[in-house]
Amino acid sequence: MVMQTIQIRLTEGLVEQIKSLVDKGIYPNSSECVRDAVRRLITGAGGKLELKEAEKVKQQIQKEIKESFQKPTGTSDLYPEDYSIREQIFSVLRKTARSFNFQEVESPAFETLDLLTKKSGQEILTQIFTLEQKGDEKFGLRFDLTVPITRMFLEKQKSIAKPVKWYALNRMWRYERPQAGRLREFYQLSVELFGSENPNSDAEVINLAIQCLKKLGLTDKDFFVKINNRKLLQGLLLSIVKEDKLEELVRIIDKSPKITPEEFKKELSRIKADYNKIRDILKCKTLEDIEKLKLNKMAKEGLEELKAVTSMIDKRYFKFDISVARGLAYYTGTVFEIFDKQEKFRALAGGGRYDNLVELYDGASTPATGFGMGYSTLSLLLKEKDLLPAADIAPDYFVVMIGDTKEKSLEIIKQLRKRYKVEYDLNERNVGNQMKYANSLNAKKVIFIGGDELKAGLFSVKDMKSGKEEKLSLDLL
Amino acid sequence: MVMQTIQIRLTEGLVEQIKSLVDKGIYPNSSECVRDAVRRLITGAGGKLELKEAEKVKQQIQKEIKESFQKPTGTSDLYPEDYSIREQIFSVLRKTARSFNFQEVESPAFETLDLLTKKSGQEILTQIFTLEQKGDEKFGLRFDLTVPITRMFLEKQKSIAKPVKWYALNRMWRYERPQAGRLREFYQLSVELFGSENPNSDAEVINLAIQCLKKLGLTDKDFFVKINNRKLLQGLLLSIVKEDKLEELVRIIDKSPKITPEEFKKELSRIKADYNKIRDILKCKTLEDIEKLKLNKMAKEGLEELKAVTSMIDKRYFKFDISVARGLAYYTGTVFEIFDKQEKFRALAGGGRYDNLVELYDGASTPATGFGMGYSTLSLLLKEKDLLPAADIAPDYFVVMIGDTKEKSLEIIKQLRKRYKVEYDLNERNVGNQMKYANSLNAKKVIFIGGDELKAGLFSVKDMKSGKEEKLSLDLL
Repeated sequence: MVMQTIQIRLTEGLVEQIKSLVDKGIYPNSSECVRDAVRRLITGAGGKLELKEAEKVKQQIQKEIKESFQKPTGTSDLYPEDYSIREQIFSVLRKTARSFNFQEVESPAFETLDLLTKKSGQEILTQIFTLEQKGDEKFGLRFDLTVPITRMFLEKQKSIAKPVKWYALNRMWRYERPQAGRLREFYQLSVELFGSENPNSDAEVINLAIQCLKKLGLTDKDFFVKINNRKLLQGLLLSIVKEDKLEELVRIIDKSPKITPEEFKKELSRIKADYNKIRDILKCKTLEDIEKLKLNKMAKEGLEELKAVTSMIDKRYFKFDISVARGLAYYTGTVFEIFDKQEKFRALAGGGRYDNLVELYDGASTPATGFGMGYSTLSLLLKEKDLLPAADIAPDYFVVMIGDTKEKSLEIIKQLRKRYKVEYDLNERNVGNQMKYANSLNAKKVIFIGGDELKAGLFSVKDMKSGKEEKLSLDLL
Repeated sequence: MVMQTIQIRLTEGLVEQIKSLVDKGIYPNSSECVRDAVRRLITGAGGKLELKEAEKVKQQIQKEIKESFQKPTGTSDLYPEDYSIREQIFSVLRKTARSFNFQEVESPAFETLDLLTKKSGQEILTQIFTLEQKGDEKFGLRFDLTVPITRMFLEKQKSIAKPVKWYALNRMWRYERPQAGRLREFYQLSVELFGSENPNSDAEVINLAIQCLKKLGLTDKDFFVKINNRKLLQGLLLSIVKEDKLEELVRIIDKSPKITPEEFKKELSRIKADYNKIRDILKCKTLEDIEKLKLNKMAKEGLEELKAVTSMIDKRYFKFDISVARGLAYYTGTVFEIFDKQEKFRALAGGGRYDNLVELYDGASTPATGFGMGYSTLSLLLKEKDLLPAADIAPDYFVVMIGDTKEKSLEIIKQLRKRYKVEYDLNERNVGNQMKYANSLNAKKVIFIGGDELKAGLFSVKDMKSGKEEKLSLDLL
């Protein structure tokens, strides 16, 4: 039994009466009371609830609640239609990544906790679905794909030609308290490029992200890339705070678009960072604005990288944004985030350069850059722009058997299935019900096979959309 | 650091000395001692181990052991080549299932323990990877796909036209003690057909399984289907034992091919089942043999079903086998297993009719039939028969930039990527190293872009397999 939440409006008097039924213990809560009322309405079952019957209702409800097998909160079931839509979108992402010569890889669903906590520290444990320990090893479900892919890279690091261009499009899990809209299982495209410190590589991954969205039908009117460079940002900030305050300051700037100016000022004063100086930096909207500031060596280096990267990206698709920092120690150079033009949804994608990660996992120092693109926000935007592909699940042909033609029909079906999606009524119902079933499956065409048709070798083929019927021999299908 | 297990043979004397080094605490175990010896041999580092050096060696080994991040035992990393091979096989399975008008569905990786243990009882818990409980709910990783798909069916049971034909091709997990060849994470094609008790539906799923294998290049020389009917088997056995011994007897017959005749006799005598009578049943190799036996009503019904099902399956691909039972209460009618012809590997697939499962999960009584086909055994057989597809990961074109042609080259690459997989050297190395990189990627063709070529609009295109070179304008690519 799947429950769905709806909002209802009732008069106060009715609400009082529902409450009283709940208080008496007849219903466990208001929802169940309303549900029972609606069920009685629909089935035409009796009006006022008698006490004897009430006990039965109560037991039935308790049984249903206890025995219903539901999917875990925060996860999704994909039925054929939704699955088909998602796979078409994934297919576009995969084809686009391959056109850039990125190769797909796949890692296990769970990893050792040592691996999972190495990058983000023990605090990430509260967000990890950990497995109950059965042997020596402690495992957790992966919460991203960058960490497992980095582990895979480490194992081949010595033997493989660089740069290495890999992607994974797969699911991951994060523990979230059950609440609306927070998914515990979700899909992400994770693109990683190891072994190149050249700005070409940053441009390559950003251009791939842009191309993925374009191939799904989105244009520069629908999305844009916010781009920045961590060296530039950190270089500028080091003229305001000392190194030991830098991480904290970056964190505050990163969240600045989400908090009020007052909160922002308060946060800054807490770490004794000069608001006016910070404001002067955040006021810069173009690289020309930046160039007017006093730049130290680190900032200059970042600016040069940023110029090199953006020179290779179509100007219609990106905007410089000095406030983009993307978290803490993880990123080292280029950073970017992709948003819908109205910034109505969460980021469609985010990424950048992470030159220290391979070393963190005890690999030989290796520059790296990449991005992640979640399916959840992407599908919301595509839906809003009416760009979701149509589900492709209808059979091409439905064979209607008339009279005693099963043996021959099955032969024909076998032949047709070599090229088409073909269905027939496995339950051998009458012609009317076969047609009803064909309709419920949205069959594109129906072929009628009766004794006369078999004799003549000509079959009526009905186009279910146009309603047109024609007589065809099988070799013309 | 990835470890691989190898077997070595050493003289007793050497083994003693290794033990003594381990006892002294210089090496944590024999493997590390041998590993260090081999490393010294290869690097040419000094012979006999001095005590001062020993301490350093010890520390280094401890560091390496501590810091190596490995994938969990019993799981696989799929690098591009293996991933490409597997996806091509999966693509054949998916296309074939769709040609039969089965639709793909997807369920979450974990489910409530209530759901997972309902079918198989609490003893399955030892094989489930359970999640550490964080909220109210207890979850475990799914160990098959039939249970989650059945749950999905239950939720739509009332609103959806029957029969319902679904499949999933996805991963699942079983806890196994770490040991060679036992996978903890594996893939299976799971095909389920709900809402049809007609033998057509059993034939439909068996024919789909056969067609999947044929489409992968396997023939009747490579595999065959063992087919039976649980009603037939149970009807026959009920003339030998009472109903309370039936389950146990079926279990013994099911494992009879794997145990010796002596063990078989012993097992039978334990439940007081007459060996000679059982032998007479198991001696039946054809349906004609069966018809010569005395059949009760249940056996007759099973026989009729079996005849109806097999009349719709190509005779070259199946063999009647009265000993096939497939476990216990789960299956109710048709049962089948697919093996390689030599029966060298474990079953490629197995399935049958399970008319009671939906009801077990509190759904309205619904007949159902289906099968599971594991990727692991399938890929072993394909490999043995040399039928694994070639990995498809090479770029179609590799662009070699000569001199200062980057800007124009990037434009050309952008155009080519609309139709091809195209790569260039992101690290901008010299022409020799660009070619080396192109070779390491197995690029199919290389395009040379220099100043002269850009002026003339004609580019040298080298076929890397044949070595042939031709001059082409871009619109001819």
